[in-house]
Amino acid sequence: MRMPATEFDIIDRYFRLPAQRDDVVLPVGDDAAIVAVPPAKQLVVSTDTLVAGVHFPENTSARDIACKSVAVNLSDLAAMGARPAWLTLALTLPRVDEAWLDAFAREFIETAARFGAELIGGDTTQGPLCISVTALGLVDAGAAMRRDLARAGDAIYVTGSLGDAAIGLGLLRQGGVADDSAAWLVDRLNRPQPRVDFALLAASCCVCAIDISDGFAADLGHVLEASGCGADVRLDNIPLSPQALAYFNASGGIDWDVVLCGGDDYELCVVTSTANEAQLMQAARQSGTRLSRVGEITPRQGLRCIDAAGETRPLPGRGFEHFSART
Amino acid sequence: MRMPATEFDIIDRYFRLPAQRDDVVLPVGDDAAIVAVPPAKQLVVSTDTLVAGVHFPENTSARDIACKSVAVNLSDLAAMGARPAWLTLALTLPRVDEAWLDAFAREFIETAARFGAELIGGDTTQGPLCISVTALGLVDAGAAMRRDLARAGDAIYVTGSLGDAAIGLGLLRQGGVADDSAAWLVDRLNRPQPRVDFALLAASCCVCAIDISDGFAADLGHVLEASGCGADVRLDNIPLSPQALAYFNASGGIDWDVVLCGGDDYELCVVTSTANEAQLMQAARQSGTRLSRVGEITPRQGLRCIDAAGETRPLPGRGFEHFSART
Repeated sequence: MRMPATEFDIIDRYFRLPAQRDDVVLPVGDDAAIVAVPPAKQLVVSTDTLVAGVHFPENTSARDIACKSVAVNLSDLAAMGARPAWLTLALTLPRVDEAWLDAFAREFIETAARFGAELIGGDTTQGPLCISVTALGLVDAGAAMRRDLARAGDAIYVTGSLGDAAIGLGLLRQGGVADDSAAWLVDRLNRPQPRVDFALLAASCCVCAIDISDGFAADLGHVLEASGCGADVRLDNIPLSPQALAYFNASGGIDWDVVLCGGDDYELCVVTSTANEAQLMQAARQSGTRLSRVGEITPRQGLRCIDAAGETRPLPGRGFEHFSART
Repeated sequence: MRMPATEFDIIDRYFRLPAQRDDVVLPVGDDAAIVAVPPAKQLVVSTDTLVAGVHFPENTSARDIACKSVAVNLSDLAAMGARPAWLTLALTLPRVDEAWLDAFAREFIETAARFGAELIGGDTTQGPLCISVTALGLVDAGAAMRRDLARAGDAIYVTGSLGDAAIGLGLLRQGGVADDSAAWLVDRLNRPQPRVDFALLAASCCVCAIDISDGFAADLGHVLEASGCGADVRLDNIPLSPQALAYFNASGGIDWDVVLCGGDDYELCVVTSTANEAQLMQAARQSGTRLSRVGEITPRQGLRCIDAAGETRPLPGRGFEHFSART
């Protein structure tokens, strides 16, 4: 069977589209793309890579891989309070599979468009399946949320629910999706929804946020380290989905390692003065986002987890690491 | 033996540096970087990936891989006439090798700095060796060189010399580097020098340029297709290095397939009115760049190669393709 002739043909067929955004001066098709950054905006730049077998199971569908590769990058932009604008895609593929490419490209472009972002360039290469996306977004100058701006006394909030993706991965590894609840948990792993709408509203009253995809404990740890403070987190207030709760109930109780360190939850942790709580909750309502207050920033260093009985629990391990220490 | 603990440690140790450019608002270390784009400038965005065993031999040194991964992207910016500003690096590694990382990171950062660019972010993941770089550059609004602006009557120029990298690859495949001349040809493959300085000067008098790393014939073909015209190219005027000439003399004559289609020559093809020739040659002298006039744009479609006897030679095959048709 004949394969499509060339890299250029592939790019043409699947990824070269007319510009949609009017700030795209030159879209896919030249040596580089050209875009116009509005005055008074700063450019926010994030790059995230998904490697087959590391960041998603080898048998993940093209659609899910495309959705996730856009979402993980837009989640980083959301954590800065940036509005998504443009994406580049470095797609490394073992072979040309037109059905795969068609499904991937459609989903990639649709997911980006849903958040107002447009594919403007990239590179298609042959090799082991690997998808690296660079997302470019815009913030008002000086208005980005950062991880180094938490202050003692601030309250800690998280969007959505924690642990779902890690449970979903466990279910996949155990061999499959038995019911709607399991399917929902696996979707949380494969089709994360970046909190872009919430973040754009929250940025008007918050200066500190982080994407918690490496696990809530590890990523909150980054905020604490960068900001030079500590935190008390109330386990009772950690948001769990009904699906995760049902799973834990059936399997002997809540596994806090999974919830706090499981990773792949593309939720945001936002830290702000309690004076902003009403405005922040309004941002959550307006964007249809579950938002939970889970703890407080403390002047004392370190992350302390407090259970329902008021006891301090041992810290769970750090979040997902691509290069874990195995001695 | 214990490996470095975590992805974060690796990033910290090798890639997190204080910002050098004063337009870097937030450097490596948050969910995303923030940079300031000056008013009246447009942003030029290029992404290029190098896969081990596809874009460089598996045994290429960390230094050479780093140099090339920066250079191939800056060459794309140069082709637009853009000044390099910022880079992100998506680095996928099979394992943590500190000596490799140290050599790679130093060379990456130094090569970028030599052209005024700064690493502002990226992602380090585990998997088969693959390096994807997104380069961000700046041009005056409306001043970028593009591939769709060649016009009949324009002259065609190329920088440097053609075919060196393909000969270098051939030498490596034949088992090694016997002398200084061979080492120079292999360096042309492994350590390309993007024509940034020349391009910044040339952009003031040229509107059409392309990076010819997919092979001169294929990339000039892209200019012709995008611009809706053809070209006559004089083989006598194609620039060859003394090293390439010596190689061809020793091996039975010039192989025009290697010269015109070999690829991996990170040179520029510039197309402009002959009225601009003096200014263009001045740009070449000022930047220490060899520049050769190799042909003319014609109203008749297609690329025609004319030899020393004035005969039209059959077109060589297309340039290097990652996904070649093999039936």
